[in-house]
Amino acid sequence: MSESAFLAACRGQEASHTPVWIMRQAGRYLPEYRKLREGNDFLTFTRTPDLAAEVTLQPIRRFELDAAILFSDIMTPVEGMGVELEFEGGPVIRNPIRDAESVARLRIPDPRESVPFVLETIRSVRAELTGSIPLIGFAGAPFTLLCYLVEGHGTRTFSAARAFLYSEPDAARLLMTKLADTMAAYLEAQAEAGAQALMLFDSWVGLLAESEFETLAAPAVARVFDRLRDLPVPLIYFPHQGGHLLERVKTLDPDVIGIDWRTPLPEARRKLGPDCTLQGNLDPAALFAPRAQLSERIDAVLGDAGGKRPGRHIFNLGHGIDKATDPDSVAFMVDAVHERTAR
Amino acid sequence: MSESAFLAACRGQEASHTPVWIMRQAGRYLPEYRKLREGNDFLTFTRTPDLAAEVTLQPIRRFELDAAILFSDIMTPVEGMGVELEFEGGPVIRNPIRDAESVARLRIPDPRESVPFVLETIRSVRAELTGSIPLIGFAGAPFTLLCYLVEGHGTRTFSAARAFLYSEPDAARLLMTKLADTMAAYLEAQAEAGAQALMLFDSWVGLLAESEFETLAAPAVARVFDRLRDLPVPLIYFPHQGGHLLERVKTLDPDVIGIDWRTPLPEARRKLGPDCTLQGNLDPAALFAPRAQLSERIDAVLGDAGGKRPGRHIFNLGHGIDKATDPDSVAFMVDAVHERTAR
Repeated sequence: MSESAFLAACRGQEASHTPVWIMRQAGRYLPEYRKLREGNDFLTFTRTPDLAAEVTLQPIRRFELDAAILFSDIMTPVEGMGVELEFEGGPVIRNPIRDAESVARLRIPDPRESVPFVLETIRSVRAELTGSIPLIGFAGAPFTLLCYLVEGHGTRTFSAARAFLYSEPDAARLLMTKLADTMAAYLEAQAEAGAQALMLFDSWVGLLAESEFETLAAPAVARVFDRLRDLPVPLIYFPHQGGHLLERVKTLDPDVIGIDWRTPLPEARRKLGPDCTLQGNLDPAALFAPRAQLSERIDAVLGDAGGKRPGRHIFNLGHGIDKATDPDSVAFMVDAVHERTAR
Repeated sequence: MSESAFLAACRGQEASHTPVWIMRQAGRYLPEYRKLREGNDFLTFTRTPDLAAEVTLQPIRRFELDAAILFSDIMTPVEGMGVELEFEGGPVIRNPIRDAESVARLRIPDPRESVPFVLETIRSVRAELTGSIPLIGFAGAPFTLLCYLVEGHGTRTFSAARAFLYSEPDAARLLMTKLADTMAAYLEAQAEAGAQALMLFDSWVGLLAESEFETLAAPAVARVFDRLRDLPVPLIYFPHQGGHLLERVKTLDPDVIGIDWRTPLPEARRKLGPDCTLQGNLDPAALFAPRAQLSERIDAVLGDAGGKRPGRHIFNLGHGIDKATDPDSVAFMVDAVHERTAR
């Protein structure tokens, strides 16, 4: 396989162009995804390798993307810990974790036993991706998973989860450690199955002040990365809405750091230093703009990422793509990034 | 009436102690509130001056708070614009604004006709608050109201609302202007009825990158404040989760700026300069900590706010109080702030 622009950028090596992929690129904005989902519930979908592999590949067939990302959900690996997971629009936990005993009962499962279907999906996708398009594996970061496990469902504030950090600090720390160990094993198994980069999504870390990030969330991320550091795959961390945490994020030393659309890339670069690759950060809402304005926004992101080290940038949205997005706007964006950055 | 510590702090004058009040202090965490709400729906409650006034006063009777805040909802004044508002846990708009025609149809109502019950509530509360406890009036900031009007209900991302900013920029600007003019008239009427400070809640402004804040949200806030600037009441702006916007917020020149719990007060002070009062910013979740830890957190906020100008601080939470909070923890917090800052 010839080296991919995506993997080169992850490692800070010169690539033929700025690579581009899209968070949630396999999803509901694609008519072919909606068609395949008809009559299949979400959990069945993530647990059936043929379907999950097909969905992973759909955006690769439609757009000139530089990476594929496993179709799955951040909650998938927590079922094996002993959590009763359902999906009703989003994840719902019937037995939310609210005390030390519940944390103590959680297992750290072997991913080959708890999520064999994920590893099978990865092998299937890799068998199809014979060109230079690498496959990204991923997991949820411990704090973001804790939010769901304690709250029991998605909310805007995760008040119960955040109250738990203060009211049960020892149980919270143990839960974070168990989640870190489960996710480390999960990501390790993904790499063994063929994932060529590993990404940790910390979707709710922006709820934390720096002091809680420092004492609780960052050590758990470090624990995951420490176990993965010797694997021959780049590590990506996405601290969503974590602009105020970047100085501390730097010390976690991932190869790539995802930047949401509210943090300007030059500010992120200033806080993170020259030795990591930035991934982002077009506002997903910009894909609803007329072409001329969208074009300006793409140029603005490329300009912000540029300067002396354009090779240290992977173009992406600043958050997951919205389900109402027009796929033609996505095609326009992908092609524009390639045309404007060809070297 | 003797000058209140709250109003003194708003104006940057020396006060006997650091004043404290709590965002959403009149609400569900209080058993007396839950009792009064039994059998009454939320909209009826906000529209009945006797009930709204009683709820406004409940936390003042229970705690040694330095300010009362009108019990109402940020959506209350938009009904008069022609929006069909209901409450189902949160606001629901039956006819969301999605095009230029819908924006054009919106009226800018006279608050004396559209919300006489709010003005009556303010007069009732003022008649009861004969001591040195001032009453804060408030409104939602234009961008936050736009989020609900376009989306039709609360979400975590307000994707449809943000897409509208890009797909219908002219309609979005007109909507912001109409909302600004409606809120300016609404707040002006509140001051005339007796409100002694006016606060603009921008709960969702943290969704915006600085460029959108600059072109869309900030001008609308400025339009509201310009109309209120000559009133003899301090102006408070709360840009929730807007740590990345503070340099621009400074130019809006409110007397007081609310700081959420993720932005350290020293950083806010550095970005905002010495000439405004900071309000905040204890993490609401800290009220779930055991007393010793809560006490440390209170000290940390007071320390962060201190330095050379302790008079430029109003103690508050960094967001609304959670409904599961123990009122005894609130009493502990209020008393601790007073004891530790008595001058």
